[in-house]
Amino acid sequence: MKLNIACIPGDGIGPEIVTEAKKVLNKIASVYGHEMVYTDILMGGASIDVHGVPLTAEAVETAKAADCVLMGSIGGNTATSPWYKLAPGLRPEAGLLALRKALNLFANLRPAVLYDELADACPLKKEISQAGFDMVIVRELTGGLYFGERYTTEEGGVRKAVDTLTYNENEIRRIAIKGFDIAMKRRKKVTSVDKANVLDSSRLWRKVVEEVAADYSEVTLEHMLVDNCAMQLVKDPAQFDVILTENMFGDILSDEASMVTGSIGMLASASLNDSKFGLYEPSHGSAPDIAGKDIANPIATILSAAMMLRFTFDLDKEADEVERAVKNILEKGYRTADIMSEGCKLVGCKEMGDLLADEI
Amino acid sequence: MKLNIACIPGDGIGPEIVTEAKKVLNKIASVYGHEMVYTDILMGGASIDVHGVPLTAEAVETAKAADCVLMGSIGGNTATSPWYKLAPGLRPEAGLLALRKALNLFANLRPAVLYDELADACPLKKEISQAGFDMVIVRELTGGLYFGERYTTEEGGVRKAVDTLTYNENEIRRIAIKGFDIAMKRRKKVTSVDKANVLDSSRLWRKVVEEVAADYSEVTLEHMLVDNCAMQLVKDPAQFDVILTENMFGDILSDEASMVTGSIGMLASASLNDSKFGLYEPSHGSAPDIAGKDIANPIATILSAAMMLRFTFDLDKEADEVERAVKNILEKGYRTADIMSEGCKLVGCKEMGDLLADEI
Ligand SMILES: CC(C)[C@H](C(=O)O)[C@@H](O)C(=O)O
Ligand SMILES: CC(C)[C@H](C(=O)O)[C@@H](O)C(=O)O
Repeated sequence: MKLNIACIPGDGIGPEIVTEAKKVLNKIASVYGHEMVYTDILMGGASIDVHGVPLTAEAVETAKAADCVLMGSIGGNTATSPWYKLAPGLRPEAGLLALRKALNLFANLRPAVLYDELADACPLKKEISQAGFDMVIVRELTGGLYFGERYTTEEGGVRKAVDTLTYNENEIRRIAIKGFDIAMKRRKKVTSVDKANVLDSSRLWRKVVEEVAADYSEVTLEHMLVDNCAMQLVKDPAQFDVILTENMFGDILSDEASMVTGSIGMLASASLNDSKFGLYEPSHGSAPDIAGKDIANPIATILSAAMMLRFTFDLDKEADEVERAVKNILEKGYRTADIMSEGCKLVGCKEMGDLLADEI
Repeated sequence: MKLNIACIPGDGIGPEIVTEAKKVLNKIASVYGHEMVYTDILMGGASIDVHGVPLTAEAVETAKAADCVLMGSIGGNTATSPWYKLAPGLRPEAGLLALRKALNLFANLRPAVLYDELADACPLKKEISQAGFDMVIVRELTGGLYFGERYTTEEGGVRKAVDTLTYNENEIRRIAIKGFDIAMKRRKKVTSVDKANVLDSSRLWRKVVEEVAADYSEVTLEHMLVDNCAMQLVKDPAQFDVILTENMFGDILSDEASMVTGSIGMLASASLNDSKFGLYEPSHGSAPDIAGKDIANPIATILSAAMMLRFTFDLDKEADEVERAVKNILEKGYRTADIMSEGCKLVGCKEMGDLLADEI
């Protein structure tokens, strides 16, 4: 099979982790007889430096022409980077938001898994973490407050800013269907998160989610208020299978959940549209402080590549193989600095990529 | 001094915990020579049952006529309570939202403290919790998404819902001033939380907070994105002193922070206006499952009463005395069921109130 992959190395540690992901994909290609074709795209700070904008129309076209996008990370350190002196619409993140919209990537899937081998890194105490947990947050990614109309104005000398949170039933239905479809392949439980005791958009959310649920009699649906969910993720993460929620709540809760695993350097993500197209990227950021030092953890990007094999190319066997390799390498005791613990073998970014490629 | 206190026992465990708070306040009155005058108000489910609405205009007037409001908790179990079959504006929470607005209670203060004696209840592992933590979340309470214009409509047969997030500079300034004033009496650090990389309201928030900060040269200000803050609360809660944020972010983060303490039954809150008026209530909910069983923990309400003595009446000595009594009783090993641990003495709600009153 020929796999047409647009790559966005991006900023900070982005380029090095994407290089390791390609290494692993190339090994998959040679073992399973596929052909990987990579086309690099500039986005974020890397694009600002060259083109003056975080995403060009050509970059969007190149992405559209590919089967999918594999991304490293974008942006820098807001306190020290000159990119953050630019107008908001010209900053690195604006490129990512624009690409999500242009590619209609409405479904963001972020697994938060406690790896047995990394249980010591979990910030929760043993009584809670020993139950283990394995959830996926299904976040709506192209609607809500982050894409609504917004403006800043002055009324009688008083500055005022407005953001708008809008959802229509179609936007809610398609993400709910994704959530339930994913639950069907897992433990068949959906926790839909909203603030229906206050927001109109949340009440519509709840209604449409219930309509969708009617088609999935095997799936257990529960509703949870967002403030309560923020508590439950700390108190009892094992209760969750699929968390289904809107854009902003998903942003906050998925970051909380990833921190609860204690190994954010291990967490993949996929942003999907209605067909097979997807953008795959690690859940973590660009970590500019450790960029170029060969100490970043490439595993989240490599596992994102595994999600890509599974979702965009239906290459389940190959995806399983990548995930198995990660498990084996952890079992053998290899660790990058972020997940290092006593008695384990410390390796750099490149060496971790080599080990994983060799394991396949 | 004559203290005119409007009381809202409310629903669930509300009445029993307010009774114990009055017991402690009465002891304070007799020891320090004050006079407590209580006027009870119905709100939430209790008001719906009697008046058909969660808050009457008379109730608001009674509250306004008092020096402050002491509240238990309102609402029930959304799954089983008939109140949740009512239209949203008629449900228990609508009463609380309306009262906040009517009394202009724009500043919500929620301390999240790890008590030494209760460190075992903390869901975080020792490596993190041993540093201890003591923060207060200063949440804007009468603006933003929870009070913006909202509507649900149909366009071409497609249902659509809209909520609006509006802040003007005056609303931001007054809460920022509260946050910095509080920081001046604490460890002099403010973490302002927003989503300024996306939202216009957050960018205005950040600007106005910086303008206010200019008047507090002794206070260190840092900005943090809300998704990052949700992570940091789990990873390293000791870094926070004052967290200053808008309504919705504050709702989510303060609940997360309270769960991180592991003893939500201990956490007080105050909602203040521009003058000395305040509404004081525990951070926890109405716990209908344990209502009337004399097992609820009244300490959060009692500590809320201490905040009331301090903020509304400037009775610092009396407030200190209540807080000291709580510390002593914990040191002596008395615990309600929610904070019980091995080797401690289990007591009920009433007995805890008696012990605390006796300690004064
Ligand atoms: C970079 C930012 C705009 C983005 C978001 O909030 O959507 C990021 O936090 C994420 O979660 O992917
Ligand atoms: C009851 C509800 C409307 C309220 C809120 O979200 O403001 C509650 O969650 C709180 O935090 O006080």
